[in-house]
Amino acid sequence: MNILVSNDDGIDSPGIFALVKTLKEIGEVTVVAPLKEQSAVGHAITMQVPLRVIKYHKNGEFFGYAVDGTPADCVKMGIKNIMKTPPDIVISGINNGSNTAINIIYSGTVSAAREAAIMDIPSIAISLTSHAATDFNFAAKVAKMLAQEIAGKELPVGTLLNVNVPDIPEDQIAGILLTRQGKSKWDDMYEQRKDPYGRDYYWLTGNLKEVDIEMETDQAAIKKNYISVTPIHFDLTDYKTFDMMKNWNIERLFDAKKN
Amino acid sequence: MNILVSNDDGIDSPGIFALVKTLKEIGEVTVVAPLKEQSAVGHAITMQVPLRVIKYHKNGEFFGYAVDGTPADCVKMGIKNIMKTPPDIVISGINNGSNTAINIIYSGTVSAAREAAIMDIPSIAISLTSHAATDFNFAAKVAKMLAQEIAGKELPVGTLLNVNVPDIPEDQIAGILLTRQGKSKWDDMYEQRKDPYGRDYYWLTGNLKEVDIEMETDQAAIKKNYISVTPIHFDLTDYKTFDMMKNWNIERLFDAKKN
Repeated sequence: MNILVSNDDGIDSPGIFALVKTLKEIGEVTVVAPLKEQSAVGHAITMQVPLRVIKYHKNGEFFGYAVDGTPADCVKMGIKNIMKTPPDIVISGINNGSNTAINIIYSGTVSAAREAAIMDIPSIAISLTSHAATDFNFAAKVAKMLAQEIAGKELPVGTLLNVNVPDIPEDQIAGILLTRQGKSKWDDMYEQRKDPYGRDYYWLTGNLKEVDIEMETDQAAIKKNYISVTPIHFDLTDYKTFDMMKNWNIERLFDAKKN
Repeated sequence: MNILVSNDDGIDSPGIFALVKTLKEIGEVTVVAPLKEQSAVGHAITMQVPLRVIKYHKNGEFFGYAVDGTPADCVKMGIKNIMKTPPDIVISGINNGSNTAINIIYSGTVSAAREAAIMDIPSIAISLTSHAATDFNFAAKVAKMLAQEIAGKELPVGTLLNVNVPDIPEDQIAGILLTRQGKSKWDDMYEQRKDPYGRDYYWLTGNLKEVDIEMETDQAAIKKNYISVTPIHFDLTDYKTFDMMKNWNIERLFDAKKN
């Protein structure tokens, strides 16, 4: 298997190191990851400035390519310029912190995998549910297992799997569940402070307001110690509202304006 | 009507100026927009550094608040810290360049409106289909018309309208269509160059590969001179694949590993 690995925590993060080590058991691994941490960058791509690609070494050995851009930039660069043939799969992670519910929207980890899906390549985003995670080995094994699973099945073109692994000892994991994106959102605010010159500045702070109780949602599943696996795509159309809005007859607005 | 306006082209762009001028005809307008251009930033939010808010003047008059962050930051800051009461509606634009098909994923204009939808506030993202647009007056009128339309109807909580207006004379506009997100994608590549010191750098370049022919899609509609109105949301779950994957029985993977 020909595997491209990226992340949003940066090429020097322990999560990507553990992931690469485990994935080498099942294939050829190419690493293209951000030079610096890129958390919460969403699906940003760099167009206004050019990108640089740096050969990055770890423990004296070549580890992969660092790009001074976003996670989506890395995947695009990896597939378009660095790899000789497109990868069979792209895996992004292992992220420090969960990417469930509303966090999927903000996540750089997910956007790297989504960029692959946009390029018609199957992909997985994988996150550990703690920001203080230190042991990425079990999550790496989950990524490997799901990469093999996808290789044997037909994941539709344009779909990626967003995977969250509870940051608990392996023997306490309850199982794996197929889930959908939860509805939990941030209850956030800006903390106002003054700099040494008396000027205001604002830090974003807040807590996730958990509203998901159905085990079919990613956020509820991880709270009950399950690994969540959510298929996501990049068609943002709200089809329910689309159908409902047919009754609005918005076409009339333009005709009304003309008369 | 109490209206919050933002954009991704920056507070000094002509598109936001035209939008604000027209929206003042129907309500109180508060402007909170990025200090600098933020195109293609996706749904980035700023967490690693604090934000500053600057009172911005135009033609010697107070115009609005500039934030040294992303479009989503601006909307969050506007609602949480600047406005005394939450707005009735948030309008983001008018963007220079279309936000149809795959561009919705990358768009800062759309992410500003989506941040409002996440905060349960109805919103509209509005874009003109040319990067060289100079006359924003008709698009501003469309934004006003749709803001009034939403006020009289029930747009579901969590849904926003993504609107694209062809950049042609008003009398050539064919009408308004309810649309869904198209499937056109970028056929892009990195152009490799050398800096004055002989080092490589890479610029992203490419063309939109148009595959949308059904008039029900945003990209096809604008090509035929229609204004497209697409309801979008922030639930990225691919429900079709979710149902299909029930047959994969992924729960077995964990049990298999245990035995």
